[in-house]
Amino acid sequence: MSVIAGLDDLRAALAVLPGGDDAAAMAIDRRQSRLTKPQGSLGRLEDLAAWLGRWQRRAEPSLDHVEVLVFAGNHGIAARGVSAYPASVTAQMVANFERGGAAINQICKTVGATLRVIPLRLEAPTADFTETEAMTEAEFIEAVAAGFDAVPASADLVCLGEMGIGNTTAASALAAALLGGGGERWAGRGTGLDDPGLARKRAAINAGLARHDAALSDPLLAAMALGGRELAAILGATLAARRHGIPVVLDGFIATAAAAPLAGLRRDALDHVQVAHCSAEAGHRGLCAELGLRPILDLDMRLGEASGAALSVAVLRAALACHLGMATFDEAQVDERG
Amino acid sequence: MSVIAGLDDLRAALAVLPGGDDAAAMAIDRRQSRLTKPQGSLGRLEDLAAWLGRWQRRAEPSLDHVEVLVFAGNHGIAARGVSAYPASVTAQMVANFERGGAAINQICKTVGATLRVIPLRLEAPTADFTETEAMTEAEFIEAVAAGFDAVPASADLVCLGEMGIGNTTAASALAAALLGGGGERWAGRGTGLDDPGLARKRAAINAGLARHDAALSDPLLAAMALGGRELAAILGATLAARRHGIPVVLDGFIATAAAAPLAGLRRDALDHVQVAHCSAEAGHRGLCAELGLRPILDLDMRLGEASGAALSVAVLRAALACHLGMATFDEAQVDERG
Repeated sequence: MSVIAGLDDLRAALAVLPGGDDAAAMAIDRRQSRLTKPQGSLGRLEDLAAWLGRWQRRAEPSLDHVEVLVFAGNHGIAARGVSAYPASVTAQMVANFERGGAAINQICKTVGATLRVIPLRLEAPTADFTETEAMTEAEFIEAVAAGFDAVPASADLVCLGEMGIGNTTAASALAAALLGGGGERWAGRGTGLDDPGLARKRAAINAGLARHDAALSDPLLAAMALGGRELAAILGATLAARRHGIPVVLDGFIATAAAAPLAGLRRDALDHVQVAHCSAEAGHRGLCAELGLRPILDLDMRLGEASGAALSVAVLRAALACHLGMATFDEAQVDERG
Repeated sequence: MSVIAGLDDLRAALAVLPGGDDAAAMAIDRRQSRLTKPQGSLGRLEDLAAWLGRWQRRAEPSLDHVEVLVFAGNHGIAARGVSAYPASVTAQMVANFERGGAAINQICKTVGATLRVIPLRLEAPTADFTETEAMTEAEFIEAVAAGFDAVPASADLVCLGEMGIGNTTAASALAAALLGGGGERWAGRGTGLDDPGLARKRAAINAGLARHDAALSDPLLAAMALGGRELAAILGATLAARRHGIPVVLDGFIATAAAAPLAGLRRDALDHVQVAHCSAEAGHRGLCAELGLRPILDLDMRLGEASGAALSVAVLRAALACHLGMATFDEAQVDERG
């Protein structure tokens, strides 16, 4: 049975979050300053190497076991015509992941990551959040626990992504609940909505925010009310990784929104997290800015399924290879600054 | 003997530049629209796959042979105190590349690219461009030809970068000559100049621009006057790749400035080129904007030695893997838009 059996367990886990290893990060910074390059000239590659070490708690971090977790869920809100695709596509894409035919399969192969797809009761969509809570407390906790328990303690890095027709609507509503602004601020075109669809999506978000107004001041109740089992699972996985000493890369808009309630509950709760890429989905740049997270890549991607997260692993591998493999000024007999 | 034996050969080569293969690019776009993802949702990965196909002239491009070429040169202008490092570092870093101790070695290993380092008469720095032309016509052509001849006709992609203490000064002067604005607009801190160094660098650039004013309206004469053998070689290599049907990735500020004279001579001369990353060096963002080139990565890197170009290969590999490996909607039996 999961250690997360109720909302209280979740709050208790957040109360005792482990911090990063400052000594490991400092040792990495010291070594970086001795490597044969001008100080700081590898830019974010240097920061990312130190970040890996800080959260893996070792001065020689590794990326031998990179786990990409894709959670899938179905959404009652999809019935409101908020997606360009029918809800049947969620299960079909899960099957596509399992057969190796999706973008995420190709990218995982390219970067040397292990893909695991975790469908969450696809046969039972969450409720339409304009009418009632998307999930009961039991359903929410079950989804959080599924994410929590999916993180292998042996992983060096966990990449989190999702699949779920309608889930940009849930993510936008959750971002609005946590950060203010309504559908106009947060709704984007998702997989390719037309103008009437976008208007329906905004209206659905605003109706959900009005319906659940009383619950929205509590980030966990907001996540429960506006839903997404796959969003709840990403929240749980982000928390589990922190407890195991595993750095996390969140994919795009939906994954970032999914983890955002943790930051609402505790400001440092996402310190072990990087956002992989700035999604082309409308709300993502603003969401990252609000959370103080700077995406690693910016390639106009908006596919989800952890595709950006997996791609960012290539950057992390380069960062680590430079850190571990480069010669120092002394070793290479290169003169230092004049 | 090289086909580039004089300025006239260079101008003649530019007059008969081959175009891209529109049919191949269109076939790639058509396939992308059938793959199991919302239209356009892989963003720049889709554009990059089509770009590879257009310039490799085939609908199924490949990245089996990725060649990273690093040209190195020494600069008379370095004697003016325009770099944080002594000129001796150029040859020392070339030795470091050859022993495998530099960042570029680690990144090439990570992305599966072949590294070749080509030192260009390091024992004979170019002349101080505040006093005279950096290179004679013979020296300039020799360097261009070295770059031209270094491109293997069998490569699927060529990444171009450089090493040369003082070469951000040459690159800044060249950008100023081609695009207007003086040292104030184009000079940055290079490998880490302090304020007095930056002032010396700006003054040197402005002195060079004044000294060679009459020549600057001709992009090739500007490149000759302001110099950099490694910059001239990058220009030659960019041209050779176009002739061989090989797409090119330019590294950062210096490589972009080095190739810029080609665009000054013929507007479409860099259509087969991507800029790998937006360098943290001050002038690069503006230079890319002037040339209409959007960097693939933006990671605050400013190392040179083709490090950003090699890193961008990881993105290109992912783009190609998605294009070639993904299932279509029909194959995966996934429903299309509702």
